[in-house]
Amino acid sequence: MIWSLPQKNKYPERIALRGGCIRMSLMTGEQYKDSIKDLKINLYCFGKKIENQLEHPITAPAIEAVALAYDLAHDPEYEDKITTISHITGDRINYFTHLYRNVDDFVKRLDLMRDLARRHGMCTGARCVSGNIANGLESVTYQMDKKLGTPYYERFRAYWEKVQREDLSVGGYITDPKGDRSKRPAEQTNSEAYIRIVDEKREGIVVRGAKVLISGASIAHEALVMPTRGLGEDEKAYAVSFAIPTDAPGLTLLHQFPSPDFRRLVPGARGMDFGNERYGVYNACQIFFDDVFVPWDRVFMAGETEFTATLVSRLSPCFRCVTSACKCGHRDLLIGGSAVMAEYNGVAKAGHIREKLSEMSYESELSYGCLLGAAYRGFTTDSGNYFPNGLYANVGKYQAMKALWFAARMGVDISGGLVMSMHSMEDMEHPELGPLIEKYFQANPNIPTQNRMKMMRLMEYLTGIGNILVAESSQGGAPTASQQLVINAELRKNLEQYRRCVLDLAGIDD
Amino acid sequence: MIWSLPQKNKYPERIALRGGCIRMSLMTGEQYKDSIKDLKINLYCFGKKIENQLEHPITAPAIEAVALAYDLAHDPEYEDKITTISHITGDRINYFTHLYRNVDDFVKRLDLMRDLARRHGMCTGARCVSGNIANGLESVTYQMDKKLGTPYYERFRAYWEKVQREDLSVGGYITDPKGDRSKRPAEQTNSEAYIRIVDEKREGIVVRGAKVLISGASIAHEALVMPTRGLGEDEKAYAVSFAIPTDAPGLTLLHQFPSPDFRRLVPGARGMDFGNERYGVYNACQIFFDDVFVPWDRVFMAGETEFTATLVSRLSPCFRCVTSACKCGHRDLLIGGSAVMAEYNGVAKAGHIREKLSEMSYESELSYGCLLGAAYRGFTTDSGNYFPNGLYANVGKYQAMKALWFAARMGVDISGGLVMSMHSMEDMEHPELGPLIEKYFQANPNIPTQNRMKMMRLMEYLTGIGNILVAESSQGGAPTASQQLVINAELRKNLEQYRRCVLDLAGIDD
Amino acid sequence: MIWSLPQKNKYPERIALRGGCIRMSLMTGEQYKDSIKDLKINLYCFGKKIENQLEHPITAPAIEAVALAYDLAHDPEYEDKITTISHITGDRINYFTHLYRNVDDFVKRLDLMRDLARRHGMCTGARCVSGNIANGLESVTYQMDKKLGTPYYERFRAYWEKVQREDLSVGGYITDPKGDRSKRPAEQTNSEAYIRIVDEKREGIVVRGAKVLISGASIAHEALVMPTRGLGEDEKAYAVSFAIPTDAPGLTLLHQFPSPDFRRLVPGARGMDFGNERYGVYNACQIFFDDVFVPWDRVFMAGETEFTATLVSRLSPCFRCVTSACKCGHRDLLIGGSAVMAEYNGVAKAGHIREKLSEMSYESELSYGCLLGAAYRGFTTDSGNYFPNGLYANVGKYQAMKALWFAARMGVDISGGLVMSMHSMEDMEHPELGPLIEKYFQANPNIPTQNRMKMMRLMEYLTGIGNILVAESSQGGAPTASQQLVINAELRKNLEQYRRCVLDLAGIDD
Amino acid sequence: MIWSLPQKNKYPERIALRGGCIRMSLMTGEQYKDSIKDLKINLYCFGKKIENQLEHPITAPAIEAVALAYDLAHDPEYEDKITTISHITGDRINYFTHLYRNVDDFVKRLDLMRDLARRHGMCTGARCVSGNIANGLESVTYQMDKKLGTPYYERFRAYWEKVQREDLSVGGYITDPKGDRSKRPAEQTNSEAYIRIVDEKREGIVVRGAKVLISGASIAHEALVMPTRGLGEDEKAYAVSFAIPTDAPGLTLLHQFPSPDFRRLVPGARGMDFGNERYGVYNACQIFFDDVFVPWDRVFMAGETEFTATLVSRLSPCFRCVTSACKCGHRDLLIGGSAVMAEYNGVAKAGHIREKLSEMSYESELSYGCLLGAAYRGFTTDSGNYFPNGLYANVGKYQAMKALWFAARMGVDISGGLVMSMHSMEDMEHPELGPLIEKYFQANPNIPTQNRMKMMRLMEYLTGIGNILVAESSQGGAPTASQQLVINAELRKNLEQYRRCVLDLAGIDD
Repeated sequence: MIWSLPQKNKYPERIALRGGCIRMSLMTGEQYKDSIKDLKINLYCFGKKIENQLEHPITAPAIEAVALAYDLAHDPEYEDKITTISHITGDRINYFTHLYRNVDDFVKRLDLMRDLARRHGMCTGARCVSGNIANGLESVTYQMDKKLGTPYYERFRAYWEKVQREDLSVGGYITDPKGDRSKRPAEQTNSEAYIRIVDEKREGIVVRGAKVLISGASIAHEALVMPTRGLGEDEKAYAVSFAIPTDAPGLTLLHQFPSPDFRRLVPGARGMDFGNERYGVYNACQIFFDDVFVPWDRVFMAGETEFTATLVSRLSPCFRCVTSACKCGHRDLLIGGSAVMAEYNGVAKAGHIREKLSEMSYESELSYGCLLGAAYRGFTTDSGNYFPNGLYANVGKYQAMKALWFAARMGVDISGGLVMSMHSMEDMEHPELGPLIEKYFQANPNIPTQNRMKMMRLMEYLTGIGNILVAESSQGGAPTASQQLVINAELRKNLEQYRRCVLDLAGIDD
Repeated sequence: MIWSLPQKNKYPERIALRGGCIRMSLMTGEQYKDSIKDLKINLYCFGKKIENQLEHPITAPAIEAVALAYDLAHDPEYEDKITTISHITGDRINYFTHLYRNVDDFVKRLDLMRDLARRHGMCTGARCVSGNIANGLESVTYQMDKKLGTPYYERFRAYWEKVQREDLSVGGYITDPKGDRSKRPAEQTNSEAYIRIVDEKREGIVVRGAKVLISGASIAHEALVMPTRGLGEDEKAYAVSFAIPTDAPGLTLLHQFPSPDFRRLVPGARGMDFGNERYGVYNACQIFFDDVFVPWDRVFMAGETEFTATLVSRLSPCFRCVTSACKCGHRDLLIGGSAVMAEYNGVAKAGHIREKLSEMSYESELSYGCLLGAAYRGFTTDSGNYFPNGLYANVGKYQAMKALWFAARMGVDISGGLVMSMHSMEDMEHPELGPLIEKYFQANPNIPTQNRMKMMRLMEYLTGIGNILVAESSQGGAPTASQQLVINAELRKNLEQYRRCVLDLAGIDD
Repeated sequence: MIWSLPQKNKYPERIALRGGCIRMSLMTGEQYKDSIKDLKINLYCFGKKIENQLEHPITAPAIEAVALAYDLAHDPEYEDKITTISHITGDRINYFTHLYRNVDDFVKRLDLMRDLARRHGMCTGARCVSGNIANGLESVTYQMDKKLGTPYYERFRAYWEKVQREDLSVGGYITDPKGDRSKRPAEQTNSEAYIRIVDEKREGIVVRGAKVLISGASIAHEALVMPTRGLGEDEKAYAVSFAIPTDAPGLTLLHQFPSPDFRRLVPGARGMDFGNERYGVYNACQIFFDDVFVPWDRVFMAGETEFTATLVSRLSPCFRCVTSACKCGHRDLLIGGSAVMAEYNGVAKAGHIREKLSEMSYESELSYGCLLGAAYRGFTTDSGNYFPNGLYANVGKYQAMKALWFAARMGVDISGGLVMSMHSMEDMEHPELGPLIEKYFQANPNIPTQNRMKMMRLMEYLTGIGNILVAESSQGGAPTASQQLVINAELRKNLEQYRRCVLDLAGIDD
Repeated sequence: MIWSLPQKNKYPERIALRGGCIRMSLMTGEQYKDSIKDLKINLYCFGKKIENQLEHPITAPAIEAVALAYDLAHDPEYEDKITTISHITGDRINYFTHLYRNVDDFVKRLDLMRDLARRHGMCTGARCVSGNIANGLESVTYQMDKKLGTPYYERFRAYWEKVQREDLSVGGYITDPKGDRSKRPAEQTNSEAYIRIVDEKREGIVVRGAKVLISGASIAHEALVMPTRGLGEDEKAYAVSFAIPTDAPGLTLLHQFPSPDFRRLVPGARGMDFGNERYGVYNACQIFFDDVFVPWDRVFMAGETEFTATLVSRLSPCFRCVTSACKCGHRDLLIGGSAVMAEYNGVAKAGHIREKLSEMSYESELSYGCLLGAAYRGFTTDSGNYFPNGLYANVGKYQAMKALWFAARMGVDISGGLVMSMHSMEDMEHPELGPLIEKYFQANPNIPTQNRMKMMRLMEYLTGIGNILVAESSQGGAPTASQQLVINAELRKNLEQYRRCVLDLAGIDD
């Protein structure tokens, strides 16, 4: 029941001290993998418990993608891109644990997301969401304490200092199952449709419910939990935010896999069969909380309903931007992959190919440009946290999704029919079939057939047929209806002004 | 070497004679399955030979989809939709072996495609393509014989009479591997990039090469082969069209499966895990011809290069229409599924849902309306075959593709995030996980959780994440560049007239 | 009060009798102009009465466009396109007075609209709408008489025989001012928001109200009036349909002109200043009925509210198709004009020009193909009238509008900046300015500067900046919301079927 | 010939000195008008010389729009928005003469453009372009002097100090007639297709040629001229940049008016007939240089071809952003106007209206957000000038155009048919017609008919039918092909990187 204390000593060796005045809290990929192996997570997948995530076909590649980001922090070329100095500790930290202090800070995160997506073609969920929640929590706990005299700010800062010092991966838990979408939490017949406090003890609180579609949950050390929506006064039990280790007692994780990623479970499937062999597989879990205990020093909100809407409205734009920035990296890959496929097919010089690549780029940069605009038009809170502009964040997110579907369509268009019917490694290494494939699927005579096959599988992956990338762009970071809502709300605010302008120009007294 | 004769006696039992003056040549689904089992096809999948397609996870469901169309021919309600009277034999035949005689004939085929796709959510490739090739061949052989005195027309009619009498499924083999796309067949370094005659004997010809991306090849009794493009005078060996049984000696079939359909190979995966459990899995093969012998009575073109372009230009519009009509059925399913998901999620009454369904319908019917226009604007050849208009066929096909990607995007949008991360049957039947899923994934309280899960998987399938439907719309029936080519060519024809009109209106003497 | 009788003798000379067994009722353009001059219409424009429409700058060019269609009927090359045999009289008639008997009939009208728009770049409103109303009235009066024993059918046939014999131009009056759009006619505070019968006499009825946005009203001999919407039982006075001569006592016409056409009123403006010099100016009037008397033999509906919805729903799809077909002709001009401008600017060979023309053609033919589909999917009533399919008519109309805006945007894009800032004839004929313009605005050295200037003005006209063409596509033939309504209604009908299909495929018992 | 000196004393009264340490150089609108009247410009319009622009129907309203911006500088509420402190003089200046020093500076200009467009619905061309040229020139002259030892930087600074001190309106002259677009300046048969130095004297240079489509030229005090493109070494004569007063000897201006603005020339047309009565009429001239003399102190480039491309590439992104920012203001008006029209028509609450307004806003803000991103991603030169990012500037500009066409289409859609056929003041004030219009065109009973009519005319103007706003968005600030060019060029730069990423992910050694 006091697991929160020993944790503090659990990964001290991860703090790599280097000479000079700035201490570094940067794990390597290898250290990260070791630390994940150490976790005793109650994790299931395809009806079976996963004992070692490093060896499981569904989780192993996702771990590689996270490990890459740990390793890059030690790459001198990436130092400026993926590390920074903590405003809490003054130490050099991995950017994924950094809280934004100004526009450049935030844009650096966007650029990082785009860059990483280009390198691993994957979701960086295990570390991506929590930074945004933390940025929101730091500002909202500051505000709560100021108004209510609560001790949340210091508590949260202490927790986050630990995260930075130990260079932890922290999953961000936002989405509740929601039950009947036409009803508020307090109105649900199924009282467990939203996570809530079911008991309060001297040492902490007890929590019951579920969080769904949580990216990277099982491969993160910790979980940072918050409400999924603004709450009414009668919904105090649902106004709860806290942190727990991923292997906390009472927690059950159920790993997901969309149909394209089932293929990782096929005996004999291997190598390029997986499209994005090394890193692939979008990685998410459902999380069930069976009366999970959380000690007070990890509780950052417990009943303060009036601050829930603020918390949500602050971090949402952050998250919309961040989750749209990685999509831009994916589109970069789709553009690059389409160009390569055209080359491999022998049509690189065709006019329509050039036009299509250009149009893909236009649609893509339109989103990214708008994200930069959202960053620029942001604001700083009293607590010193920086948040992007809500309107442009939502407009950019909506376009990020449309541009990705467009890029996927173009990617299929340019790749050609093989993209949807590639052969397996078993076929290609078969003594009779292999040579036939080799012979008949050669196109551009300067390109080995094997390379064309590999690139086809990668394009299958990138276009969403062999992954869910494209679909995820519609749903990850909130569905489009949420963006339309914000756009609409913002419009309502300005509409009166626009209305007055036209009345004035038309010479009409209102 | 004389396999073409015994074939005649192979399926006599398939001819179901019924009382009355019109004989019926209609197999049942069961008879079709038996006949497929009898074939000795040299077929591989995932590096292993398939001995019994009825039991193989990749081929079995596709066989069900074809069997459905056999069975419907015996359903009185469907008699008018899926059967007709042969213009060759005067018998009642399955519509898939019918050759179009007029606009109503052709539209009936379009309506049938849409209807079937709504019923099985699958490709009907095993019987779909060949009818279009046959319609082209009947007209072109007629023309060839008239000009060159060749015996192809009667030969083809005799062959097709057999197909109708025995109610055979005939695969349509069009696409060659093509090698270096910037070169013509005769210019390829890899001489096997296009199928060709390598020897001519007294009894027939010998053929070498490959055909790729052939829908339904392994579950059809026969193969009807034709060139993939117009050929020059120096390419006589490539001007070849013929029919062979799918189990002809020298033929090797290699079955494909896109990444979503790998899941059929996962031990333990079952039931709703497959999305479209009963019929699913788009079914296609690569076909390798290792010096395959074809007797003369099954050869319909051998060297007449001047007729290849005509053949291609006649059947292409047919095929573009037909392959776009089934996409309309798929979009009907996406519209229906989106409506149901909205209902299951409890948001059926939201205004934006209604607008989205309406927009899906608009985009979809725009394509179908244009296909009907293509049918109406068609023409009849001397041989009595009816062909749709090329311009509107290509315009409708292009829109069919765009509308399907749009519908898929909307389908994901409306379904919600679960569509990309559903759980497996193993999870759902697990004693501890099952109840958790049941409890937390309930939404609309009037709908059993299980139904919501099933519909999610079906939507996963329909939106292309759990199948390749959406991608296939970009590539099946020729990639968009081909359509743009025709649209452009047609425009060039009319441009001079448009030009003259504006010069005239502007008062400019040219 | 008995003006309906002398009318019969008014234009006997128009009936041109030629040898042979088929009489011809075909005016020439010249005869048409004379007949328009004879009319004593109470017509105003820009605050002044128009005494002679042939000489008025706003009406004269529109008269030319109508005259062209009269003349073409005498052009042997056009005989098949613009004339046909009347199903009433057996005489050869102008196609604009023909009522559709089958799909080919209707498509011929569509092709004619497209062709004429290509020739005059104008609206053929003076004769366009009434044919559709008449087709609806013939079928609905037939139905009314059958059910209610009324004498409308024979009466209407007698009237329409006169129209055909005298080759009259008949305006179609549909749209009422509508007042408060949230209320039905009977609920309006302004009782004159919809046209209605205010008195019934022995010899006929008296009508009060207005019709707005009536294309070609002042340059037509007659007016055929009908309700703009389906009516309830309490709205008998509004259920009225009849015909009157355009110069009937009590009728006031107020001519409209959008801002671009104001230029026809500028002293000194001339020649190419008008863009479409010869025919231009979209021509429409507001019509005020100040207790207009209509004799019984010209009344075709008077109180039969239950048939109003049928009438509207029948002619609407006709009209949507017809008004979309002419837009296709306008887009042909935009495509042609864009090609010519590219040539004149010296960039005809640029790849992006080719792509843009191709995309314009795709969007355009998509609409036209769908209209053909609507025609094909039509139906014949008991009275022998043919009507196109409502769904495809509305889908095609919606796309016709979108495609025209797109073509206009491309037209401006390709023309270049001069399209929006051309000089006037006064400038060009000025001794000092003229040579400067001549010298500095030369582009392609093979093209006289003058031609480039003329084509720019025509493009200004065609792209909607110098006319309202593009805007008219959004509003003419009903605004888009009406089309969305029909698309939606049709979807509701099919949705249950689509729903059942997916439930079935997902294995869910409803 | 030494007119450049007396100029200095010409408008001393414009310098309004106020108490305090910062001097103000801010004219009022009235002072601006007086100063324009004083200019002796050789200006023609519709074949006649304009003697007094303040009274001419084409120029007067445009002068009002410029005067508004002068007056706002004296409005305390606008002080922060439209004035700033000069980095040259330290005085408070109008923002239109300010050169950008950092991102906030540049964004302030964007916000100002949007705001002003909302207030006058007009182009601010008379002062808009030159600020961007000047920003480019300050940086490039700095660079030239450093490399070549030329005296341009100080000269330009002295000139611009005068502009700031006298608060002048300076037109920006960029676009040459270009002649045959397939040839470079030096290759043209027509040697006057591009402006060039024809003589060099001791006191200055002599210039011949033309500049076209120059916004606000006749209502600006001065002209700042620069080459329209990068030039080769053999094109020294064309590498020329300088400033002259608009009434310099040898200069002829020919005013343009698109067809909608012809209406200002109609006798009797007045008031609301003009749509945007007070400010309307996009204002541009062709400028002919008949051997115009320019003294050395106003020459900022004369033969330095190597710096032409740099100059163009620096100011282009500035200008693309600025000219897209005003389009956003126009779209704000279209959104506001559409909302008001829906209200006036009585359908403000319809669901589809709300969706359409939201979609208009999305498309619009997508462009503005991207412009902000371009601003943020900019850079500072050694000279201290700030420039936005080229890629995002071009992407945002392209979208600005597409969004405006979309908004125009929606605006017509929502307004209804009257938008394209409004009546004139002559009609409305006519004793008989006026009351009919008043009576029949009432819609929402709470809104005076007159107001609905006024708003219709404004919407006619805003949607481009009654102005060229929408078309201008396609051509002003460079046609879309230029943007696609930049997007493409940028893509080429990044493509290699994207290519390497996919090769790496696919496991292919290049």
